[in-house]
Amino acid sequence: MGSNKAYLNCLQRDEAQALWRNTLKEIGYFERPPVEHLPVTASLGRVTAGTVYAKQSVPHYNGSAMDGIAVYASDTYGAQETAPKGLTLLPPGSPFTPGGCYAVDTGDAMPAGTNAVIMIEDVHISEGTAEIIAAAAPWQHVRIIGEDIVAGELVIAEHHVIAPVDIAALLAAGLDTVEVVKRPKVAVIPTGDEIVATREELQPGAILDVNSHMLAAAVTEWGGQPARKSIVRDNRQAIEETLIESLAESDMVIINAGTSAGREDYTAAVLSAIGEVLVHGVAIKPGKPVVLAVCQGKPVIGLPGYPVSAMLTAELFVRDILLARHKLPPYETPQVEAALSKAVASTIGMEEYIRVSIGDVQGKRIAAPLNRGAGMISSLTKAQGVIRIERGSTGLPAGLSMPVTLLRKRRPARTILSVGSHDLALELLGLFLRRRMENVALSCANVGSMGGIMAIRNNEAHMAGIHLLDEQSGCYNVPFVKKYLPGLQGCLIHLAMREQGLLVLPGNPKGITRLSDLARPELTYVNRQRGSGTRMLLDYELGKAGISVSVITGYDKEVGTHMAVAASVAAGTADAGLGVQAAAQALGLDFIPVAKEQYDLLLNFAPDDDCLPEIIDILKSEEFRLEVERLGGYDLREAGEMISVN
Amino acid sequence: MGSNKAYLNCLQRDEAQALWRNTLKEIGYFERPPVEHLPVTASLGRVTAGTVYAKQSVPHYNGSAMDGIAVYASDTYGAQETAPKGLTLLPPGSPFTPGGCYAVDTGDAMPAGTNAVIMIEDVHISEGTAEIIAAAAPWQHVRIIGEDIVAGELVIAEHHVIAPVDIAALLAAGLDTVEVVKRPKVAVIPTGDEIVATREELQPGAILDVNSHMLAAAVTEWGGQPARKSIVRDNRQAIEETLIESLAESDMVIINAGTSAGREDYTAAVLSAIGEVLVHGVAIKPGKPVVLAVCQGKPVIGLPGYPVSAMLTAELFVRDILLARHKLPPYETPQVEAALSKAVASTIGMEEYIRVSIGDVQGKRIAAPLNRGAGMISSLTKAQGVIRIERGSTGLPAGLSMPVTLLRKRRPARTILSVGSHDLALELLGLFLRRRMENVALSCANVGSMGGIMAIRNNEAHMAGIHLLDEQSGCYNVPFVKKYLPGLQGCLIHLAMREQGLLVLPGNPKGITRLSDLARPELTYVNRQRGSGTRMLLDYELGKAGISVSVITGYDKEVGTHMAVAASVAAGTADAGLGVQAAAQALGLDFIPVAKEQYDLLLNFAPDDDCLPEIIDILKSEEFRLEVERLGGYDLREAGEMISVN
Repeated sequence: MGSNKAYLNCLQRDEAQALWRNTLKEIGYFERPPVEHLPVTASLGRVTAGTVYAKQSVPHYNGSAMDGIAVYASDTYGAQETAPKGLTLLPPGSPFTPGGCYAVDTGDAMPAGTNAVIMIEDVHISEGTAEIIAAAAPWQHVRIIGEDIVAGELVIAEHHVIAPVDIAALLAAGLDTVEVVKRPKVAVIPTGDEIVATREELQPGAILDVNSHMLAAAVTEWGGQPARKSIVRDNRQAIEETLIESLAESDMVIINAGTSAGREDYTAAVLSAIGEVLVHGVAIKPGKPVVLAVCQGKPVIGLPGYPVSAMLTAELFVRDILLARHKLPPYETPQVEAALSKAVASTIGMEEYIRVSIGDVQGKRIAAPLNRGAGMISSLTKAQGVIRIERGSTGLPAGLSMPVTLLRKRRPARTILSVGSHDLALELLGLFLRRRMENVALSCANVGSMGGIMAIRNNEAHMAGIHLLDEQSGCYNVPFVKKYLPGLQGCLIHLAMREQGLLVLPGNPKGITRLSDLARPELTYVNRQRGSGTRMLLDYELGKAGISVSVITGYDKEVGTHMAVAASVAAGTADAGLGVQAAAQALGLDFIPVAKEQYDLLLNFAPDDDCLPEIIDILKSEEFRLEVERLGGYDLREAGEMISVN
Repeated sequence: MGSNKAYLNCLQRDEAQALWRNTLKEIGYFERPPVEHLPVTASLGRVTAGTVYAKQSVPHYNGSAMDGIAVYASDTYGAQETAPKGLTLLPPGSPFTPGGCYAVDTGDAMPAGTNAVIMIEDVHISEGTAEIIAAAAPWQHVRIIGEDIVAGELVIAEHHVIAPVDIAALLAAGLDTVEVVKRPKVAVIPTGDEIVATREELQPGAILDVNSHMLAAAVTEWGGQPARKSIVRDNRQAIEETLIESLAESDMVIINAGTSAGREDYTAAVLSAIGEVLVHGVAIKPGKPVVLAVCQGKPVIGLPGYPVSAMLTAELFVRDILLARHKLPPYETPQVEAALSKAVASTIGMEEYIRVSIGDVQGKRIAAPLNRGAGMISSLTKAQGVIRIERGSTGLPAGLSMPVTLLRKRRPARTILSVGSHDLALELLGLFLRRRMENVALSCANVGSMGGIMAIRNNEAHMAGIHLLDEQSGCYNVPFVKKYLPGLQGCLIHLAMREQGLLVLPGNPKGITRLSDLARPELTYVNRQRGSGTRMLLDYELGKAGISVSVITGYDKEVGTHMAVAASVAAGTADAGLGVQAAAQALGLDFIPVAKEQYDLLLNFAPDDDCLPEIIDILKSEEFRLEVERLGGYDLREAGEMISVN
């Protein structure tokens, strides 16, 4: 049941990277990697193993650079406007005679005996004679052999990534093949009793092997050639056997995971037995239980099991090793400065990496931290950047301007930050917006309606979905906007009337038909947290129905999301909970409509921002209405109407 | 013999791009491109055709997030340090009974009836009872179904380039396949009577087809799927047939070239016959004779024949169309500011593009223009950036700071600019330097020794190879450095004694054995330009031998490079010329040694620059000496010695 065994050693990230790289350098891992000869035409993106010298000159002949006549320069001396000279036009192929010339087109080989070209514009031809009015300098308008590339000279340097223009140069310089560094073979070994290869095997407690596919793709992107192995159980001998087999076939091995110090974590032990473990544990979060080892002269990396940890540690300890193997410089990580949208805590002594969305709000660049869970795959796909918190820090305050490392090669030109209550209609809005405005992306952080109002107040979001019911007035949203955003710069736009309802087991075994059924003593309810729009709705509806909260079993058990409500019901620990239809659909629950609530958007754009009219236009459009209403439980008849808050 | 027929219309570059893109937009070329379904695991780098929604939630079950005990939260209420509560440890798989609990490891499915986990550290287990000292909140330390991704929600947006992390997310969200945009098929048709496919066919006047390979690789890099067609002769019907065949198979067709308005340039005529020519001629240099047309609803682009023109116009008129077809934003062209190392002239009315090397010299970023010839393939491979001269400009002055668009994804961390007399030993020096210092590149601009001295004086180069003989003193280099670089910041380092000699036809048919043979009246000489080191050497040696220049036939015929000398000899228009051995080797000429000259390096680095000791160390090294001497005609015994100029 777990173990508190300490890691053998726990290095700082920079120390671990230096030790790792230096050790591999010392054992000669980056020297003379295997090479292969490829046809030049198949070498795009590969890396030259050595300097490539021209085998032939370019041009390979002396050719005319103009349409005109080819002459022997000396024959032309003395020609001038006042004293033209006549040259005899010789038939093509006939031998040169002094005072003769040939008609040539651009690119034609210079006829033997000639060494200059006079442009056709400067020649008057009649009756077999070419009259010229200026002398020609030797080799004028002639492309001389080797003018571009001289046989024997360098065409492409070693350790160069071959681009399309390099292919042209190599072919022109007489090369049919080129020696390139072989892609390092990287074995990726997924391990773990809980890991399964297919969705069919995916029982509760099992985890689909997605990491090995992600890591294989990352290896491909970084110039390696991945070989995914079959999943290996948490069995020391099996891991050892697969490792030895992989070492024989590969230039690098990645084991994922079994890298912690738990009872069934064999990676470090196996690596110690077969080779030398350099590092076990790095003071980073996530990703601490990384193992770096050298076995049989090859790097073997044990990456932690959580996807976010696995990706981060692969970036830190695999990527640059693969690049260095090609003698390429370390990966460039472009950075931008951005202000943190909220405070983030950090563990002192650990270097922490937090993935963020990036957006420009009212002229200020904002980095909005995403969920930090090491298991949150969605934080990997939603992230546009990552911030690093130094190990000496206990956390960073909201608003701090700091460097953000960009994660994607292509960052959307604009990211619209949506921070507030989540709804699937927002994703559709993002989709429509993207279709209309090229290169715009919508990033949603789901922090609830009140969180959204605060983000707008601090200019940290462009948009917030809110559904806050004022119990006294029975009004939605406006009272809250008035209270918390008194000088609102942006505007409040109606999105939809949205159905909330009771989530119950499929087939509704407890026969729940309306909210007042919650008072039945044998039923258990699961509630949302205080301050959430859904909780406010419940309280309001209970009040209207004259039901006291005290008679509802489970009213005091709060969870934080629609999905947590649905999960409680699906797991049988509650009989019902209030939530949106989408949560019911996700877990196959039945949905009993209770009330419609007003879901509006707070928009925070500069008045001349072209997003603003587009968003309103989308909200009012027939296509958007149909698309959202198709989700079920939505009424968009008033969508796009501006709501007065004065 | 050419034609002065004007282009039908000659648009400005931005007008042409806008017309091109808007026309394709209007005909719906960017809408609903064909899609294909790929296994998620084979989708790296591809572009999603539509929004991808989760088919299953992640996690797909309620699981323990800790090692500990799974409990029903209500059972734990009231437990505190002063009043511990005991829960009955139930055997795994047995039904839940109130007041019971189960041992769970991280990742285990929550047993039915439980809804919270208490960490093992907070539990005391003895004799089948788990004693707890704090209450558990519902769902604490539980990873709830859908916490990461909820079934039905957006996983990956449409028109998104699939990254390794996206593969993980797609698989986890229950997708086995993903719908991606089909790579647009792009036919590349090489045309031209002078174009040949293989080196075996490469007679004088013929040009190897390198463009179609370069363009195919560029199409690949930009997300297209190229199909190279066989070379088509300059025959209108043949071009038309190949075009029609290509249109049937492809989403875009590139014809290269035949785009000018010459006699045998059929591209525009064929495109007019089959479809609509939107643009013929764009006011850019190089690249003017580009043709943009729409045939059968597909874009057809006629690119000019010179490699530099073809690549530039492909970047301007092909790249973003392929990206837009994937609904991806236009290509990002990162820019840096740099000062021009020399003045560049420009034709008014034409937007000119000039490729440059980029280096930081003594704290100033320098852009050194490369040879502007549209046929210079080497300028494509040597270029790190490109500058654009506006159409209203007649040229730019030296020293002007201006934006430079970077051409390579990976720019070397440092480029050492070598500007001066060229020698193959410099290339080897660059190679050795690159081996010792990661991510350093050497860029050589060959402007002669005096040009090198001037570049050093203006802080526009790090290094200049010079071999300047002072006729009066018989000394090399030092007198010139004293005169032109009086306050020299850098230093003068000896590189090699280099042999210059007479280049003669193979077998030396004229029986030339020494310099004085040049006085023989039947021999024709080809000379280098005044001010070149080689010319100075000739004059000095002639003087020593007591030979008057007036007796040498051809003394007044000057050419500008070693290779031009060699080409003159090889073509039979001169019997001999003075030059280096490498030029003789390149054209298979014989070489008659005449004199050794001193080839030195001017170095212009900050005193603490770590390149400086490395360069000197390389020059003094045995490996470098052997490597250079192997070229023939070099003596490096004194290489690396500092030469006093005081």
